[in-house]
Amino acid sequence: MSALTLAAFDGDDTLWHNEPLFWATQQRFAELLAPFCPADHLAEKLLATEIANLALFGYGIKGFVLSMIETALEVSGNQVPNAVIQELLDRGKDMLAHPAHLLDGARTGLDAARALGLKTVLITKGDLFDQEGKLARSGLAELFDAVEIVSEKDEATYRTLFARHGDGPQSAVMIGNSVRSDILPVLAIGGAAIHVPYAMTWAHERAEPPTDHPRYRRLDSLHELGALLGVL
Amino acid sequence: MSALTLAAFDGDDTLWHNEPLFWATQQRFAELLAPFCPADHLAEKLLATEIANLALFGYGIKGFVLSMIETALEVSGNQVPNAVIQELLDRGKDMLAHPAHLLDGARTGLDAARALGLKTVLITKGDLFDQEGKLARSGLAELFDAVEIVSEKDEATYRTLFARHGDGPQSAVMIGNSVRSDILPVLAIGGAAIHVPYAMTWAHERAEPPTDHPRYRRLDSLHELGALLGVL
Repeated sequence: MSALTLAAFDGDDTLWHNEPLFWATQQRFAELLAPFCPADHLAEKLLATEIANLALFGYGIKGFVLSMIETALEVSGNQVPNAVIQELLDRGKDMLAHPAHLLDGARTGLDAARALGLKTVLITKGDLFDQEGKLARSGLAELFDAVEIVSEKDEATYRTLFARHGDGPQSAVMIGNSVRSDILPVLAIGGAAIHVPYAMTWAHERAEPPTDHPRYRRLDSLHELGALLGVL
Repeated sequence: MSALTLAAFDGDDTLWHNEPLFWATQQRFAELLAPFCPADHLAEKLLATEIANLALFGYGIKGFVLSMIETALEVSGNQVPNAVIQELLDRGKDMLAHPAHLLDGARTGLDAARALGLKTVLITKGDLFDQEGKLARSGLAELFDAVEIVSEKDEATYRTLFARHGDGPQSAVMIGNSVRSDILPVLAIGGAAIHVPYAMTWAHERAEPPTDHPRYRRLDSLHELGALLGVL
């Protein structure tokens, strides 16, 4: 890697915690539905419903809540009490209003990229309104030269964005927690990718890291990002 | 108006029909909830819920479905049958999968703007994933130089976008059906605005047209857009 000009960052579970919110809601979902369905079967049904709905809903909390309600109706044979549905709606609103708790090292890593003279871009997937809100609540907005909220992170998306904000994939590095969304498509078009694994990953996002790829790196924390970018 | 370089178009109810979809679903919602609530009161409650939820949900179909479910639980005192909730989920999916039926004159108007050498940008509000899908299904995507899906259409948004894609507000014209979202903020920053009223408007979007503003125009149909742009 040489002559980097652009550092692109993922948001959810790279700069701020996200998956634990979904996890906590899903735990409560399992408690609420326990009279109708064992937790492991429920989790399977919910994941299948979420994936089936992705093509219509895209990513995000609103679609997650709709998928939970659909799953609740299904596994209960339409016997789930209205109070449970009300609680799922309330939990969804809580999730949407939740503060964006930064990961340790997020600000340090961003500062380091800027100090090295790189343009910084947030490239995040999901619901436009929710992602804008999280960015605003994160306090990191001023550290980005540009923000791109996209519906899917694929090769075409990265190609467009690396051209728009930088000098193409060869001069760009993407930093994120999802091998599937942040790493593989970037490497495939000739970019560099730094994987910062998060403690939990949504099943749909799981993929094997390409540990032998020459433009792949792995970091335990964004605290170390400056040192790594400095030697790339 | 002179030296226009940018023609920005709204999508929903300007280029393709949208409000009738919500209207039809809301009619069915009233039928389903009739045992619990008279239609006029239900409509009032739903609108109040939608507006209260805007700050968390933003605009779009998923938020609309969540607001319908919330309203159904409320007006029924948690007595609404699960089959009704299931139907609301199904209706939401139907809305999301619905073809984008073009308004008469949509393609003609876009072609005319391009023939006059203007850059064309779609500026549409709402859910990222849903709006991208509608644009793809509309068959109009290739007629735009750029697409901007935004969470709110205010003065700051238009200022940014008219600078990004054109030469600022003075050289830009916005074409849309919503006085509140497409016309007033554009006039306020010095742009030109062409109002193409649609037969129905969501109560939240209603506002008085500024008929005496020098940079305001009104058209009955996009068929006439070329002629109007030609003399502005």
